[in-house]
Amino acid sequence: MKYQLGEGFWSQKIRQVCDRMIPLQLSILKDEEPDTEPSHALENFRIAAGLSEGEFHGMVFQDSDIGKWIEAAAYRLMIAPDPELEREIDGIVAILGKAQQEDGYLNTWYTIKEPGKRWTNLQDCHELYSFGHLTEGAVAYHQATGKRAFLEIMQRMADHIDTVIGPEEGKLHGYPGHPEAELALYRLYRETGNEKYLKLSRYFLDQRGQAPNFFEEEWERRGRINFWSGKKDPVNLPYYQAHQPVREQEEAVGHAVRALYLYTGMACVAAETGDAELAEACRRLWHSAVNRKMYVTGGLGATVHGEAFMGNYELPNDTAYAETCASVALCFFSRAMSLMERDGKYGDAAETALYNTVLAGISLQADRFFYVNPLEVVQGVSGVQEGLKHDLAQRPRWYACACCPPNVARLLTSLKEYAVQDQGSEITVHQYLDGSVECEKAALSLKTNYPWDGDLLYTAEIRDDVKLYLRIPAWAEPENVRLTVDGAAVPVCPEKGFICLEPGKGRHEIRLCLPMKPRRIYAHEQIRQDAGCVAFACGPLVYCLEGCDNPEPLWNLTADPEGELSMLDPDGSLPDGIRKMVIPGHRRTDASESLYSGRRPVYEPQKLTAIPYYAWANREPRDMRVWIREG
Amino acid sequence: MKYQLGEGFWSQKIRQVCDRMIPLQLSILKDEEPDTEPSHALENFRIAAGLSEGEFHGMVFQDSDIGKWIEAAAYRLMIAPDPELEREIDGIVAILGKAQQEDGYLNTWYTIKEPGKRWTNLQDCHELYSFGHLTEGAVAYHQATGKRAFLEIMQRMADHIDTVIGPEEGKLHGYPGHPEAELALYRLYRETGNEKYLKLSRYFLDQRGQAPNFFEEEWERRGRINFWSGKKDPVNLPYYQAHQPVREQEEAVGHAVRALYLYTGMACVAAETGDAELAEACRRLWHSAVNRKMYVTGGLGATVHGEAFMGNYELPNDTAYAETCASVALCFFSRAMSLMERDGKYGDAAETALYNTVLAGISLQADRFFYVNPLEVVQGVSGVQEGLKHDLAQRPRWYACACCPPNVARLLTSLKEYAVQDQGSEITVHQYLDGSVECEKAALSLKTNYPWDGDLLYTAEIRDDVKLYLRIPAWAEPENVRLTVDGAAVPVCPEKGFICLEPGKGRHEIRLCLPMKPRRIYAHEQIRQDAGCVAFACGPLVYCLEGCDNPEPLWNLTADPEGELSMLDPDGSLPDGIRKMVIPGHRRTDASESLYSGRRPVYEPQKLTAIPYYAWANREPRDMRVWIREG
Repeated sequence: MKYQLGEGFWSQKIRQVCDRMIPLQLSILKDEEPDTEPSHALENFRIAAGLSEGEFHGMVFQDSDIGKWIEAAAYRLMIAPDPELEREIDGIVAILGKAQQEDGYLNTWYTIKEPGKRWTNLQDCHELYSFGHLTEGAVAYHQATGKRAFLEIMQRMADHIDTVIGPEEGKLHGYPGHPEAELALYRLYRETGNEKYLKLSRYFLDQRGQAPNFFEEEWERRGRINFWSGKKDPVNLPYYQAHQPVREQEEAVGHAVRALYLYTGMACVAAETGDAELAEACRRLWHSAVNRKMYVTGGLGATVHGEAFMGNYELPNDTAYAETCASVALCFFSRAMSLMERDGKYGDAAETALYNTVLAGISLQADRFFYVNPLEVVQGVSGVQEGLKHDLAQRPRWYACACCPPNVARLLTSLKEYAVQDQGSEITVHQYLDGSVECEKAALSLKTNYPWDGDLLYTAEIRDDVKLYLRIPAWAEPENVRLTVDGAAVPVCPEKGFICLEPGKGRHEIRLCLPMKPRRIYAHEQIRQDAGCVAFACGPLVYCLEGCDNPEPLWNLTADPEGELSMLDPDGSLPDGIRKMVIPGHRRTDASESLYSGRRPVYEPQKLTAIPYYAWANREPRDMRVWIREG
Repeated sequence: MKYQLGEGFWSQKIRQVCDRMIPLQLSILKDEEPDTEPSHALENFRIAAGLSEGEFHGMVFQDSDIGKWIEAAAYRLMIAPDPELEREIDGIVAILGKAQQEDGYLNTWYTIKEPGKRWTNLQDCHELYSFGHLTEGAVAYHQATGKRAFLEIMQRMADHIDTVIGPEEGKLHGYPGHPEAELALYRLYRETGNEKYLKLSRYFLDQRGQAPNFFEEEWERRGRINFWSGKKDPVNLPYYQAHQPVREQEEAVGHAVRALYLYTGMACVAAETGDAELAEACRRLWHSAVNRKMYVTGGLGATVHGEAFMGNYELPNDTAYAETCASVALCFFSRAMSLMERDGKYGDAAETALYNTVLAGISLQADRFFYVNPLEVVQGVSGVQEGLKHDLAQRPRWYACACCPPNVARLLTSLKEYAVQDQGSEITVHQYLDGSVECEKAALSLKTNYPWDGDLLYTAEIRDDVKLYLRIPAWAEPENVRLTVDGAAVPVCPEKGFICLEPGKGRHEIRLCLPMKPRRIYAHEQIRQDAGCVAFACGPLVYCLEGCDNPEPLWNLTADPEGELSMLDPDGSLPDGIRKMVIPGHRRTDASESLYSGRRPVYEPQKLTAIPYYAWANREPRDMRVWIREG
């Protein structure tokens, strides 16, 4: 499925990733970026390859940064050729090849720092995680260029892993501490056709959480020492989603990114193998994550403690974690579910994550990045106070643990895979990605200013009979949606979130008009942190109030329960045609000396101005909040 | 000033302390209480005395528990003789005498566990803290019985300290890590007249925070190791209020109990010596603690991290720390300020602390205790979630760090000192303590059902011309207060919170009627956690909603901004004549499946029932909250 950029919202974002983020990240990986702490990721491979001397530096999973960058760069090459970029990748692949050991093993941490200790700590040392990301990079690069060198490197490593881990006697009966290899092995199987990789992926999935517990046994073997704390901490199995077999799991728990990578792997394998029990577990876990534990911004993993899911409906706004990677991973998981069954809810959730938390992960200039995405920021408290130190009010330039920026890069450069699903005679449009996609039997071209207006104009060149499924977002009441095919109105009665068109061969103009009226959002009655509050959205974009546009402190503002919300035309204070929202409200205006008194607070009318959540923290650092008191 | 119990609110509480808490605590100190972890506090002294064999057990400041218990027991003896209790104390004092070293040194931790290391860690090892509490016990026991043995033991220890610490060359230029010795030395000076103790107290105060910093030097000397973490943590000077000289301090910071003990010592010394600069520092710090950092319940120290004050107006309800001891210490500090200058604000703050957080520290049966006093509790979250583990929904029976229960015991048994101040020809009534106090020139007897009604009937036997100052609480609008002396109305125009009466010699009936109408309380506009919320009070009692009386979850309840609040007659569901409050309100009644939707929440009228905050968690564990959304 070939994709050509257009001129709209996503094309502009993808161009930024291609033109700024990918070169920036390469520069960082090569330790060439000024004023940024060296990544050492490539240097680690050079040392392992004998091309350089020195010590290992970085996280135990530093290798994965290379895999994720190559993956993003490969997708970038699929959009448009770039011989210079390809040469860079080939150069890196050559180093990786030299760093690979005789037996296929490839991991710089163990090769440089802990030789002889391979496979002794699957729980925490990320060998299989780094393998997974490198493999995803190798698959993508093979898809982009047809070059096999990297793919073969990673096949050799996969073959080696298969000799070390598995159900047979004498092998380790283990699985990844940080899931990722499961979905990567699935992709390697799809790319190579070698069923061994599917089998190993399935082994990882089904062995997880079985008794006796592999992580507990491994922990005993290494003297009960926790790798991260250096202390004798017991194994927190739910953190690793290893507390019970995956088929029995009912609730999304533990480290959110690990969980969502695991569920993605489960969904891929379930769809591929027609495993109904595994598919049902995926549906339960998707429901738990999305309908019990997701922020209105598509953020997941509410607590910094273990970067983990909290209990049902526990969604604190100021202490939120909501790692960018978790929202990226929700896109992976939802796409895998979409491939299993056509239901608009998967695209709805991915849309929420994409337009809000994923995009909030990068600055409007695509040069600074959020790892953590709070829904409330208070100057002098957020980023400062114990318990809130992770909630920064400004995007840092880079992170020692740099997982999020390359994750956003690889997601956005491959966004066509999330937007359009080509099954030959069925084409499903999940997301409204401007530009053109070339499917097997049709070419679809979308011109639109969406999400700044709701007018989506598709030109479809249909070469053979196809059913074209368009997702109608859950926020768009069908009675307010207008759809025409070649000027003729089509009734809008979505089934499971989709309208099916069969326009027939030839060129067609399909015009979808979504109702882009700004709207209020209320939270479930069990979410205590949002009680009495309202949030605002327009189309897929959740809005927030920032101190730059409103009198601080923001907690003294209320939104009127009635009264019209309106959208402003772009005013130049934010780039990219961003539209602000105006909300009728009030502001507390009394001033007290004493902390407590019997005097009722005084409120005066105050126009509130909201901006898209993804655009926050792009001006001077000020307070921000998504949920506003209604009153 | 002799005090005789009456039949009212406080007398009943004091009787519970005398009849239940003091015997219970003795039993625990003697390791005789079933189903309670042994304290070992007395056993440590036995071992140090050579009367028993074994190891030290307990906190580094375990000795202080003995001092605090003896102090409470001594006050109890002042209320009514109890030869058996006195014999117990004498027995303990004899052991303490034997545990005292040749040179006067008395501390079981160093004597048993770390001999030879005395005075090497003033910052964290609490030698001076334990000394202080034992000294307060000794002073109280001397006051109660005239027996000098304990007092002399503690004078020998004080004399020894004076040879070790001080400004002279060759001495340590240090001060207590946990303030307490400052105020204890002041009391020892008052009891003995020996100015050496006042001088040492003043040295501790004025040396604190001077450069070069003693704690930093000490930390260097012990290899930079932190006693508690065992790690090379730098010294957090503000935690110890040692970041600058006390006279320069502007803001209440660090560990709240340490801070308030320190400020109490400062206020005592300032009043005694007429030190205007020190007095001014006390006023600033009192203002900071009470008018910037106090919960509506009189709780102080908002964060579990360091049991410390947070920034101005940072008063989270669910993660609150608000240690019982900190509210006890606010009574100490406010009393010391009252002795310095007559201003009703000190009694107002002490009243808030006393009737709310201090009393919440003990169960209605006086057999279970809170250390931490949150203003919002959510079942399944409070006491469970990371960051909320300290906020329990039920009072435990006892604590390994058992500082709070004996602190409440010694405060309540000496409550007369906080209620009435006898300066000969001036008698100041700060708190309405039922029962009789015998002052130098008058006897005052109060009969009242306060705080269940506002009718306070004093019978005063005046033997000489006295001015009688009555505090009119800040919550009582003077225009609604009625005051009669022998039936004749007296205009109520308080000055700095007090009305001055000069009834003349003879017997007088003074009737004060306070307006006990339930009322609404609103928080300062800078307290973000209380924005949009209202609290309720009646007289000095702050009320809260508990799940036992209201439909849960409590966050779905709103209090109507208008509408009459009413008090119920006692209904038997809570003991002691406790009166509930009825608040007109609403309850959210809609039920959603999805986490977020455009449907406006639906509210239906709901009568809310509140109980006094101090009485919460005395039925089955349920949700609780003080601040209710107003809407």
